[in-house]
Amino acid sequence: MQDSIKIAVDAMGGDNAPFEIVKGAVDAANARKDIQILLIGRQNAVEQELQKYSYPAERITVVNAEEVIETAEPPVMAIRKKKQSSIVVGMNMVKQKEADAFVSAGSSGAILVGGQVIVGRIKGIERPPLAPLIPTEKGVSLLIDCGANVDARSSHLVQFARMGSIYMEHVVGISNPKVAIVNIGAEEEKGNALVKETFPLLKECKDINFTGSIEAREIPHGEADVIVCEAFTGNVILKLYEGLSSTLLGVVKKGLMSTLRSKIGALMIKPALKKTMKSFDATAYGGAPLLGLKGLVVKTHGSSKAVEIKNAIIQCVTFKEQEINEKIKQNIINSDKGEE
Amino acid sequence: MQDSIKIAVDAMGGDNAPFEIVKGAVDAANARKDIQILLIGRQNAVEQELQKYSYPAERITVVNAEEVIETAEPPVMAIRKKKQSSIVVGMNMVKQKEADAFVSAGSSGAILVGGQVIVGRIKGIERPPLAPLIPTEKGVSLLIDCGANVDARSSHLVQFARMGSIYMEHVVGISNPKVAIVNIGAEEEKGNALVKETFPLLKECKDINFTGSIEAREIPHGEADVIVCEAFTGNVILKLYEGLSSTLLGVVKKGLMSTLRSKIGALMIKPALKKTMKSFDATAYGGAPLLGLKGLVVKTHGSSKAVEIKNAIIQCVTFKEQEINEKIKQNIINSDKGEE
Repeated sequence: MQDSIKIAVDAMGGDNAPFEIVKGAVDAANARKDIQILLIGRQNAVEQELQKYSYPAERITVVNAEEVIETAEPPVMAIRKKKQSSIVVGMNMVKQKEADAFVSAGSSGAILVGGQVIVGRIKGIERPPLAPLIPTEKGVSLLIDCGANVDARSSHLVQFARMGSIYMEHVVGISNPKVAIVNIGAEEEKGNALVKETFPLLKECKDINFTGSIEAREIPHGEADVIVCEAFTGNVILKLYEGLSSTLLGVVKKGLMSTLRSKIGALMIKPALKKTMKSFDATAYGGAPLLGLKGLVVKTHGSSKAVEIKNAIIQCVTFKEQEINEKIKQNIINSDKGEE
Repeated sequence: MQDSIKIAVDAMGGDNAPFEIVKGAVDAANARKDIQILLIGRQNAVEQELQKYSYPAERITVVNAEEVIETAEPPVMAIRKKKQSSIVVGMNMVKQKEADAFVSAGSSGAILVGGQVIVGRIKGIERPPLAPLIPTEKGVSLLIDCGANVDARSSHLVQFARMGSIYMEHVVGISNPKVAIVNIGAEEEKGNALVKETFPLLKECKDINFTGSIEAREIPHGEADVIVCEAFTGNVILKLYEGLSSTLLGVVKKGLMSTLRSKIGALMIKPALKKTMKSFDATAYGGAPLLGLKGLVVKTHGSSKAVEIKNAIIQCVTFKEQEINEKIKQNIINSDKGEE
């Protein structure tokens, strides 16, 4: 029998805090008995929300944190100054091993900075990538890195490929995940300087199933399980996924309203269409881990609702059970040995 | 009365050559009396296609070119060796002023190399960008650069912004076009090294309407008319546009087939939906100019059908009539003066 897992949740982060966050935490605690939740935020506000629900009181604790880091604040300064913010308090709990994981829908910048400065990197990890799951025709792929660490070096990308592969295999359950690098052509000689330098290094990695380059056109078809790229490119891919999905849905809706015949048809297809489009919503897989840290930090989308918070919390359990950080540490040790 | 404009068309380029190319050329010649077309390719094959149509024989000439550059061939070598290929012959006609423009659906790499090596750059232009139009909610935006010139410098991006602005104003007809740089956040301090270096330079350009950063999420909403980026990023955006549009349409179709009710509805919405999706097809605006060359070279999508070839040919007339290259030359002279 597994010990219960302690998950600190930022009750003040995101557009729908605290109500959707608290609801998501309650749903997670009701769904699984092996979860202990530490809800971090302004005590009165959080307790007021909690009162609305029935929940196992012995497994949800409120931890007071008076300050809130806003999305627009410069992250480095915010992490340094706001010691009583929910993000800093939550990250410190992970650092002190009072929590196994921290989940936040708050400021991406502050979470990325806090993860590195407070929780700290696993020894040997050069940069912790932010790795969201994106929907594809075949399921989901891990897009690594979408963080703020732009202008990465080839050695960073190799570590992203390794960590991403471990995550997809053990958390998402894809055996021998296909790893590809984002490129502007399929051939090895194509690409910018970074890709050309990284490609042969990935080919040499015996611990991953490297399948070569992936053009952006193939990403939505699910041709790779782990999509490796530098954070600027990753951010462009992730945001374009969001923007294009919502725009195309809007265009389809407008088209449906264009004739009487199509209006009647629209009423008949509405439920089926809604369900399908939901499965292709990039925000639905909102729990993106910041990999390679000494503890687990998960960033969910700023617009997260209760269901995404609940899913992100449950995802932390798998991460912990599968001992992902132990596997990353072991991988780093092995690859260092391999290079000697 | 305008003199007629001579347009060389690569009859052998693209997936549907020569039949769709020849048909597109015939359609263009029939649509406009001010166009002279030089159809370049294997004489027999091209003439066989031409026989199928009625067309003004005095305005369509076949120019024999026995060789064909295949998409998979290394471009530099192909341009050097295949002197009798349709691409090399067409480019040489532009160079020798025997043609005002060259339109090809053939190998992107060969067109980019040939444009620089054979046609040559306008004095002062550091790199010729490939600039396709992409569909948005509001119409179209120019994505500049999507070529093979990755790892650009900030001075290149500034020239892209200027040339893109001239193109959108005078060819597409958007007055005072909004110019934005692709970035991972809206703030000036965000971005990778290249964007951070380029941003202040664009702010200083008095001849363009620079509106700042654009996140990839906002691109499909049509927030900018000219979207400036380095070619690797541009290629990712263009290809993801294609891949995601086709995947989402597939997902929608699958959803429509999921219940009996939705199947009936699907039949009713089919015509309206088809029309709408067509307007959002990135390949439909297939004529991407390679800007900054001494003549005009237009690359159309490899899968171009007759209608795209026809549109690309007609687009060349506007380009020539509006004296885009004269405007680019003047702009370079003025901006050099400004820097002194």
